Amino acid sequence: MPGNTFGHTFRLTSWGESHGKAIGGVIDGCPSGIALCEADLQHELDRRRPGQSAVTTARQEKDRVEILSGLFEGKTTGTPLSFLIWNEDQHSEDYEKLKNIYRPQHADEVYDLKYGFRDYRGGGRASARETAIRVAGGAVAKKMFQAMGLNTRITAHTQKIQELEVKNPQLDVIEQNSVRAADLKIAQQMEQRILQLKEKGDSVGATVEVVIENCPVGLGEPVFDKIKADFAKAFMSINAVLGVEYGAGFESAQLLGSQNNTRENGIYGGITNGKPIQFRIAIKPTSSIQLDQLSE
Amino acid sequence: MPGNTFGHTFRLTSWGESHGKAIGGVIDGCPSGIALCEADLQHELDRRRPGQSAVTTARQEKDRVEILSGLFEGKTTGTPLSFLIWNEDQHSEDYEKLKNIYRPQHADEVYDLKYGFRDYRGGGRASARETAIRVAGGAVAKKMFQAMGLNTRITAHTQKIQELEVKNPQLDVIEQNSVRAADLKIAQQMEQRILQLKEKGDSVGATVEVVIENCPVGLGEPVFDKIKADFAKAFMSINAVLGVEYGAGFESAQLLGSQNNTRENGIYGGITNGKPIQFRIAIKPTSSIQLDQLSE
Amino acid sequence: MPGNTFGHTFRLTSWGESHGKAIGGVIDGCPSGIALCEADLQHELDRRRPGQSAVTTARQEKDRVEILSGLFEGKTTGTPLSFLIWNEDQHSEDYEKLKNIYRPQHADEVYDLKYGFRDYRGGGRASARETAIRVAGGAVAKKMFQAMGLNTRITAHTQKIQELEVKNPQLDVIEQNSVRAADLKIAQQMEQRILQLKEKGDSVGATVEVVIENCPVGLGEPVFDKIKADFAKAFMSINAVLGVEYGAGFESAQLLGSQNNTRENGIYGGITNGKPIQFRIAIKPTSSIQLDQLSE
Amino acid sequence: MPGNTFGHTFRLTSWGESHGKAIGGVIDGCPSGIALCEADLQHELDRRRPGQSAVTTARQEKDRVEILSGLFEGKTTGTPLSFLIWNEDQHSEDYEKLKNIYRPQHADEVYDLKYGFRDYRGGGRASARETAIRVAGGAVAKKMFQAMGLNTRITAHTQKIQELEVKNPQLDVIEQNSVRAADLKIAQQMEQRILQLKEKGDSVGATVEVVIENCPVGLGEPVFDKIKADFAKAFMSINAVLGVEYGAGFESAQLLGSQNNTRENGIYGGITNGKPIQFRIAIKPTSSIQLDQLSE
Repeated sequence: MPGNTFGHTFRLTSWGESHGKAIGGVIDGCPSGIALCEADLQHELDRRRPGQSAVTTARQEKDRVEILSGLFEGKTTGTPLSFLIWNEDQHSEDYEKLKNIYRPQHADEVYDLKYGFRDYRGGGRASARETAIRVAGGAVAKKMFQAMGLNTRITAHTQKIQELEVKNPQLDVIEQNSVRAADLKIAQQMEQRILQLKEKGDSVGATVEVVIENCPVGLGEPVFDKIKADFAKAFMSINAVLGVEYGAGFESAQLLGSQNNTRENGIYGGITNGKPIQFRIAIKPTSSIQLDQLSE
Repeated sequence: MPGNTFGHTFRLTSWGESHGKAIGGVIDGCPSGIALCEADLQHELDRRRPGQSAVTTARQEKDRVEILSGLFEGKTTGTPLSFLIWNEDQHSEDYEKLKNIYRPQHADEVYDLKYGFRDYRGGGRASARETAIRVAGGAVAKKMFQAMGLNTRITAHTQKIQELEVKNPQLDVIEQNSVRAADLKIAQQMEQRILQLKEKGDSVGATVEVVIENCPVGLGEPVFDKIKADFAKAFMSINAVLGVEYGAGFESAQLLGSQNNTRENGIYGGITNGKPIQFRIAIKPTSSIQLDQLSE
Repeated sequence: MPGNTFGHTFRLTSWGESHGKAIGGVIDGCPSGIALCEADLQHELDRRRPGQSAVTTARQEKDRVEILSGLFEGKTTGTPLSFLIWNEDQHSEDYEKLKNIYRPQHADEVYDLKYGFRDYRGGGRASARETAIRVAGGAVAKKMFQAMGLNTRITAHTQKIQELEVKNPQLDVIEQNSVRAADLKIAQQMEQRILQLKEKGDSVGATVEVVIENCPVGLGEPVFDKIKADFAKAFMSINAVLGVEYGAGFESAQLLGSQNNTRENGIYGGITNGKPIQFRIAIKPTSSIQLDQLSE
Repeated sequence: MPGNTFGHTFRLTSWGESHGKAIGGVIDGCPSGIALCEADLQHELDRRRPGQSAVTTARQEKDRVEILSGLFEGKTTGTPLSFLIWNEDQHSEDYEKLKNIYRPQHADEVYDLKYGFRDYRGGGRASARETAIRVAGGAVAKKMFQAMGLNTRITAHTQKIQELEVKNPQLDVIEQNSVRAADLKIAQQMEQRILQLKEKGDSVGATVEVVIENCPVGLGEPVFDKIKADFAKAFMSINAVLGVEYGAGFESAQLLGSQNNTRENGIYGGITNGKPIQFRIAIKPTSSIQLDQLSE
């Protein structure tokens, strides 16, 4: 099972099962001299943590991150940065009952086919818990951007849930509401909608917009490694994501050539040009019969 | 400018500018003993060739492919397969007038920023002509699939142009019409629509569906290299593609958890399970003021 | 500082400084279903450990390895195998005095030049302690070979120290002596020689022979990735190694074509053929003024 | 048969069989704006060409190189640089007689085992002719070094043939003699020795020294990708090379720690420090019964 490493110059290797001893990551290629501490990673992990508000799942994860290498006197040394999060609640006994069944629409069966071996304790590597390691990696990248003097800002916000849509996003209000919408009024409506559905034992999908501002010029390579292609892969590698569009996206497929020159965008020829970049991603609803966030 | 190699086990390296001497590719990792000849590549290149019907661009490309290595007595030898297509019509003089201007919405300016050097002859590597090499690579992969006894079939068809949508695709009629739609009646309407727009000097986008049948079980890796992520990258690396969705895609973002269990799909946990796989991709219209198919 | 990952299909990523909290590794690509426990790794780490006999350095490393992921019910699951060794004795205060000096013939200065940052606690990544992670990775590979039913045996023995040379190696006696020579009589002479030099505060280099028996046929690729080239890189990536030779090696450079057909060897055209493979590697003496095993 | 690509940032992909239509290469990652023409490559290919003097093999290769992409108005454009050399003399009929036999000590049998397919025309990818592509790649790298303002000079010279050894190399006389020794008097003796052996139908091995002067500081990575390890792999990937040593090399294995501080060298901790770097490589004699330079 390779495929646990992401990136080339700045590379994150991720490891750990949702019901094992710990999960963790190793970053190879982080430059030296960047001010960094465990609290930097913890801050982002806390933002990610399920169970923070009524609208998310009940599971409580405490997720205290520990950095094991690559730091000296509060700065990165340029050597691999290793970090881990101990799994406090392993409960693998809860999963004993799954030993002989496959859950519908979960990865169980295909794992068994591919690996000829089944770790029935839970999602394992297919659990959404795996994304905690991506968040920690992103926290380091953020500090690196700052140390490099870049003003690059990457913001994601919940743009649409059913008919509730944010049309004029105010990126600054995102951290002020539990659904991370960029409009406080619509955020409130989204929260209510989710709670209503939750009462009925149901869930709902969402469209998320990602905005990249002040992206350095010249990122991306012209042919197979266009920056839009790398972003598409990154987003699609998240469990519940079923769609990615960039700029005018699927709407552009309905337009005429004469109509298509209006939307600003930050990528030409697969290479960034410094203007803002917008992606939208489709998140499918959590399966209402789920035991864990396993999904494709 | 790296980024000209695609794949790991079966790797295609692509080279050549639209207005240089030739374009070509090298495939490393093709197994030995596969029956292959130039006609196999030529057949797929001819299907791709612009100028075959009234609905596409007028440019005539003859594109005779030549195989230079990796073949002996009609079979692959397991060594690198090198092939090239001579550019018959280089016309770089036509581009002299572009020497001191950047075309709007083309890659020219960003190339100049990134490489500090400008080949003003035309699209260069950013030209859609680059995809001829992908087609040749795919032709070899197709022969390899056959030699391996796989019944895998990959079909792409034009699903939607403006309001004209194919709802019950008949994959077998795709090769019988110039727009490659999977419904002959709608194909005729699409052809007329394109011709009408062309008369006015305009163009139109499209949604294309890709269907993969009899895909081997177990392809894809669980975390960063999920098969849906690799497909998304591959599609998004094509110039005019602005969106990719898989399975229920963006529609799923509007659904409830209780509604989401109905659509069959061929990927669980990022790994193929043998059922059919559907992607849809959004193609933006060719810019009506274009001189070449340069685009992001 | 990339370069901390080794291998492609079976990949080891290594992390940790000699004077940090811990050192560890992540193996991605280990197949599922292989019987494995911490004791398997510990056994090989104990064989490596300095301070086991009078002939090695005095430093005591207890090196208890802990496996954090990739195992379930005593077998590998196919997911990344993460393991670590806590550094018991960090003593970074001992190194305070090095804060403002560079040690001669150590990596200190070049690290400072390259990374613009200095972790003066000790060898850091340049310490020979890094090889403990390679040993742990090798222990997993060994179990994998066994599970695959391969009889592959890789043996290394001290062939020559000054004029003391093993001419008829008996591989079975290697584990019975502290210098790991393949001749018990010569082993005793080598031990005495090292102890005499140690009394004078001196050290000595050695030639080590590596023998690979029952290597699977067909490993290696014909051009840049010949198996002999990959082995040469692997050996040369060890700190104190200054030379690698294969088969007749440097002796062959002195031979005539008519003399060169006699020595059996296990590699043709860069590819293994199943016969035994012999390499010899040159280990330079530890610098007698050393504070740590830092070296190029 | 992967393994036909070398390098990361500046990558050479090599293709072509000794008895096919052509051999060639693609360089991805060459910066833009470097003055380059076919004559630059031809100059180095002419230096490599067999049959230039009485001391080498009789085979005449004309080897006219042609550049197909990546150049515009005499400068590199930053796009892939593709080049090829047509094989003038294919003579595959000469090899018909080999159809049903394996040559001793050649790669034939192991190729057949690995690939299950045999191209009996000649060495194929295992032919020493493959190194012409490395030479062309090196010629481009040389121009790149110059354009970057580096004074890096890489020189290889025949240091020893049997007892004839160059002890005080004068690098400037290398191009003045047919054996490329760095001492004109010894060069003459080496030439005579080779001619005498050739008359008897015999050949002889050699030790070659490679000297790198003015190497940029900071190349190499500390653990698995030490620069000495990458060089060892590069040298060992050449057919006839059976040994590589760096700095004091195998001699160092015989030294005491107290003796080892004298020899200057340009690599500390696996990273270049700007001082000269010396490697020596062992070349085995061409098999006297050979039909082609096939070898491991």
